[in-house]
Amino acid sequence: MAPRPFGDTLAARVAERESQIVLGLDPDPGALWPGIGEPGSSPAASPAQRAAEAVEDHCCALIDAAGPACVAVKPQLACFERLGAPGRTALEAVVRHARDAGLLVIADGKRGDIDVTACAYAQALFGGVETPFGEVSGLGADLATVNPLMGGDAVEPFVSAARAAGAGVLLLVRTSNPGATDVEDLELAGGGSVWERLARLVDELGRSGVGDGPLSDVGAVLGATAPGHIERGRELMPRAVFLLPGVGAQGGRVEDLSAAFAPGRAGGLVSASRSIAGAYLAGGGDPAQAALVEAERLRAMAWKLG
Amino acid sequence: MAPRPFGDTLAARVAERESQIVLGLDPDPGALWPGIGEPGSSPAASPAQRAAEAVEDHCCALIDAAGPACVAVKPQLACFERLGAPGRTALEAVVRHARDAGLLVIADGKRGDIDVTACAYAQALFGGVETPFGEVSGLGADLATVNPLMGGDAVEPFVSAARAAGAGVLLLVRTSNPGATDVEDLELAGGGSVWERLARLVDELGRSGVGDGPLSDVGAVLGATAPGHIERGRELMPRAVFLLPGVGAQGGRVEDLSAAFAPGRAGGLVSASRSIAGAYLAGGGDPAQAALVEAERLRAMAWKLG
Repeated sequence: MAPRPFGDTLAARVAERESQIVLGLDPDPGALWPGIGEPGSSPAASPAQRAAEAVEDHCCALIDAAGPACVAVKPQLACFERLGAPGRTALEAVVRHARDAGLLVIADGKRGDIDVTACAYAQALFGGVETPFGEVSGLGADLATVNPLMGGDAVEPFVSAARAAGAGVLLLVRTSNPGATDVEDLELAGGGSVWERLARLVDELGRSGVGDGPLSDVGAVLGATAPGHIERGRELMPRAVFLLPGVGAQGGRVEDLSAAFAPGRAGGLVSASRSIAGAYLAGGGDPAQAALVEAERLRAMAWKLG
Repeated sequence: MAPRPFGDTLAARVAERESQIVLGLDPDPGALWPGIGEPGSSPAASPAQRAAEAVEDHCCALIDAAGPACVAVKPQLACFERLGAPGRTALEAVVRHARDAGLLVIADGKRGDIDVTACAYAQALFGGVETPFGEVSGLGADLATVNPLMGGDAVEPFVSAARAAGAGVLLLVRTSNPGATDVEDLELAGGGSVWERLARLVDELGRSGVGDGPLSDVGAVLGATAPGHIERGRELMPRAVFLLPGVGAQGGRVEDLSAAFAPGRAGGLVSASRSIAGAYLAGGGDPAQAALVEAERLRAMAWKLG
């Protein structure tokens, strides 16, 4: 039996949790919440093991604190990869903790490669791989970010693997960083820009992945720092889930995002990392309490819009 | 003291080994060399551990066999990531084995992300990260592939970290897959194509990374499947090292690559994976012997050109 299409899963989860907020997990071992990692594990553990355990504790505490106001977590794979094998173990534990808390998981790794390699990445991110030694599970992500520079054939294996697992993919379309103007905003000889072409790719790949509701299993990353792109993106990608990073630390504002929610509340996922985890730095007080207050503030603002 | 610039390191290594061949390591646990992984480790080991050990053995055997005809190895990070934490441990062991064999290491992960995240990836790939728990080493790669879709500010942290470690980066410019026409080949309103714009970015970023010799520490991935791109790429990037994948299984031919070697023999690195590891499947005989024969055949052809 085919799994439930991801768009329907997401719409149900957003309705159930009354939230479109994605809790970004970008742990820096040098800037964890106070008290985390201090006594630490056995002195025999390596720096990588101790740092990875502390990062895991930090992420789990953040999930416990702010998770109730969120629909998903978004671990930044780079932050775990820099801690080697213990980092991967920590990532898997954080993913389990998030699932147990009822949250969806967006693996933010921005992968992309040719056919067989894209299949291998998709195995790592979604269902896993059959080997002569038994099945090796993947991360079990519900969504993964994918870089489409190499074109459709480099993206399709991610879409197929996600669809088979009832998950989805989010292609980079127009990102939130200043350098997005270098390539993504270039104007094409045939009209439109590179990012608009990427948006069309999202729409094409997602057509066969729509469930009972309006949303597809191929979505887009659109920076929340430039609201005009969200309106234009919605014209080009009527069925796509938009992941909207850049709120808070990068300057994006929730109130500018309403076009994202045209196909329903699950049409836009508002991602915030530093503004939630670091809320106590600005306002003082308990990190967990400050994180919940900030996540709940974002949740209420976004929920009013869509 | 600043480390030796990567272009000079590479030129010296190519001269010493008389080779421009890069041994691709794309291990598939279901298609390892005969005899590898069969009795296996303790029965208590998980499928991921057993698969990762077998993959490590396979890669080390391949390095022992074909390494003498090569200048570098190129582990495909996806193939290790799909084996979880044991896969990362295997990757680190393979990297050590390659270094001990006198080979450079090209980490092929095609990463790319905004500033702080790019820094985290660079820590994972190159020198490592300082944490309150002690220093956590990175992979210690000599080169890493980077995806420039997000623009210059998403690439610069990789360049800085590589340069500080005496290593280099390779930006995706024009890849070897059919889908490269979808985005990379799009013609721009201002003239030229997306990939030519990426080539200019390589050239700009690399200007400050040239050593005593002609080569810079910012290079380009240019598919060996379309020789015209290599000539044009050399015009646009006179100082860049070109990584040339697509020889063999993907249809590229060594004899079409001579433009790559205009700035000297180290100007072009010819990458082959399946055609070396799987040489015994076509020709029969011992996998190790067949791999060496194929690697040596490629080495001699490329050496004659440049």
